[in-house]
Amino acid sequence: MMTKMFENRIDWRIEWGDCDPAAIVFYPNYFRMFNMATDALFEAAGFAPASAFERFGIIGYPMIDTRATFASPNRFGDQVIIASHIAKWGRSSFEVRHSIFNQSRLSVEGFEKRVWAASQPDGSLKGCAVPDEVRKVMLPADGRMDHV
Amino acid sequence: MMTKMFENRIDWRIEWGDCDPAAIVFYPNYFRMFNMATDALFEAAGFAPASAFERFGIIGYPMIDTRATFASPNRFGDQVIIASHIAKWGRSSFEVRHSIFNQSRLSVEGFEKRVWAASQPDGSLKGCAVPDEVRKVMLPADGRMDHV
Amino acid sequence: MMTKMFENRIDWRIEWGDCDPAAIVFYPNYFRMFNMATDALFEAAGFAPASAFERFGIIGYPMIDTRATFASPNRFGDQVIIASHIAKWGRSSFEVRHSIFNQSRLSVEGFEKRVWAASQPDGSLKGCAVPDEVRKVMLPADGRMDHV
Amino acid sequence: MMTKMFENRIDWRIEWGDCDPAAIVFYPNYFRMFNMATDALFEAAGFAPASAFERFGIIGYPMIDTRATFASPNRFGDQVIIASHIAKWGRSSFEVRHSIFNQSRLSVEGFEKRVWAASQPDGSLKGCAVPDEVRKVMLPADGRMDHV
Repeated sequence: MMTKMFENRIDWRIEWGDCDPAAIVFYPNYFRMFNMATDALFEAAGFAPASAFERFGIIGYPMIDTRATFASPNRFGDQVIIASHIAKWGRSSFEVRHSIFNQSRLSVEGFEKRVWAASQPDGSLKGCAVPDEVRKVMLPADGRMDHV
Repeated sequence: MMTKMFENRIDWRIEWGDCDPAAIVFYPNYFRMFNMATDALFEAAGFAPASAFERFGIIGYPMIDTRATFASPNRFGDQVIIASHIAKWGRSSFEVRHSIFNQSRLSVEGFEKRVWAASQPDGSLKGCAVPDEVRKVMLPADGRMDHV
Repeated sequence: MMTKMFENRIDWRIEWGDCDPAAIVFYPNYFRMFNMATDALFEAAGFAPASAFERFGIIGYPMIDTRATFASPNRFGDQVIIASHIAKWGRSSFEVRHSIFNQSRLSVEGFEKRVWAASQPDGSLKGCAVPDEVRKVMLPADGRMDHV
Repeated sequence: MMTKMFENRIDWRIEWGDCDPAAIVFYPNYFRMFNMATDALFEAAGFAPASAFERFGIIGYPMIDTRATFASPNRFGDQVIIASHIAKWGRSSFEVRHSIFNQSRLSVEGFEKRVWAASQPDGSLKGCAVPDEVRKVMLPADGRMDHV
């Protein structure tokens, strides 16, 4: 049986304040966009983080590893599309992929590895299992829902 | 003959505005710190970007690939050290490594690949050769970058 | 004759990265939203800044005075509306007002005084007259289009 | 009896990422600097916010009114000084003044009105009395705030 990867796409207008004196997006701002896009991905799946974090008893999904590659710059006023999907589910971690398109051009790619984390009494963070109801909706690129 | 890697260390106080509702640094802000640290690395070598960019006829050193891994969080008021060095010189690109220490703890590691770039008449960017005077001062680590 | 104030409204979702350890928007981020809203106001009037700046021969409309008052906080995931209008046109300066609504609640108010500025050969900025075609469309709160 | 206003000065290097395509500081970033400067002011007085907030039972000192005026721009690499002092103590609120100097030039001025705030069980914020030990150290200017 074939399953279809769950993808979300958001529109983003490049803002003046996103850009630097070279008149291109200051790259740390792409990570703000990616974080926004991951939240939008969960929201599109029915798990809007602002309420879902509380419902699932987590503080959030902090980043443990992230990478971005930049093929071509984006400039003030450019209208871009950020396409996002889950690349892989682990037991308490998961991977997300983002692609930023400027018209037909693939401009920036992003990779994230995050942990599904609860806050412990001493203030430290602890990974906990990603709920099945989340895995079932947000099908990853490889179609596998099993624990890795 | 042994040569010594050129390293720079800067102190940074984690600011309230660097942190998110989980009370830890919002990770895109680490990339702001890394960018600051790369500029400080060049400045420590005698090539303060604000003037050196103009002298070398470049618009800057835009990012083409960057990655960070997060071992432990940092919080408001934490005093961290960001240690930076050139990992490798290419002809018109170079790699930088950053390590953020919170007291004795290695908290965040950053990797950057940047290009030494001039602006062309049509507004696009073009890589150009990193000057020898820069390479001679900013001695890289042994150049092995196996894991990325 | 009555004229109608030109107003624009944009939707904005409060992002995780907009918020601080008190779990409310870190106030400098409201100024990012206001800047975005001013650009959107001009775009709604047919003067999208990315292209209009060049057409009108200006570098932008840098801020000379801005103020914001905060009546109630906004939190991660809140959906807010930012309503913006021109409060007054001067010869080469203008005033903008923003109101952020969270449902029926007026949460934040912003005031801006900006200058319509060209870049001079020495790199400094110089105010120049706001074009009539802009004034005619973007009617201010008081309905007056004359120079002040 | 004469008393001396308590003032703190911090050095700040204008970063690449602070600046926009006009090659000047994107003004919302001045508010980040001012927030940093207010925290530094309290720290200089012996009340480093990261620990003092907890000791005094407050969540922080959220902003209720802030304003900045911009006399001249600052650019990448500029070394500026931010001078800060308490302008006035209220019962549960206080006013701060910041001045950014670029060499001998007064470039930006900032005004803040904040509230000394505790978090209530329902998540809302409530002003509470500023402790006398804080007022006694952080002596204000003469208290006249005519123009705001």
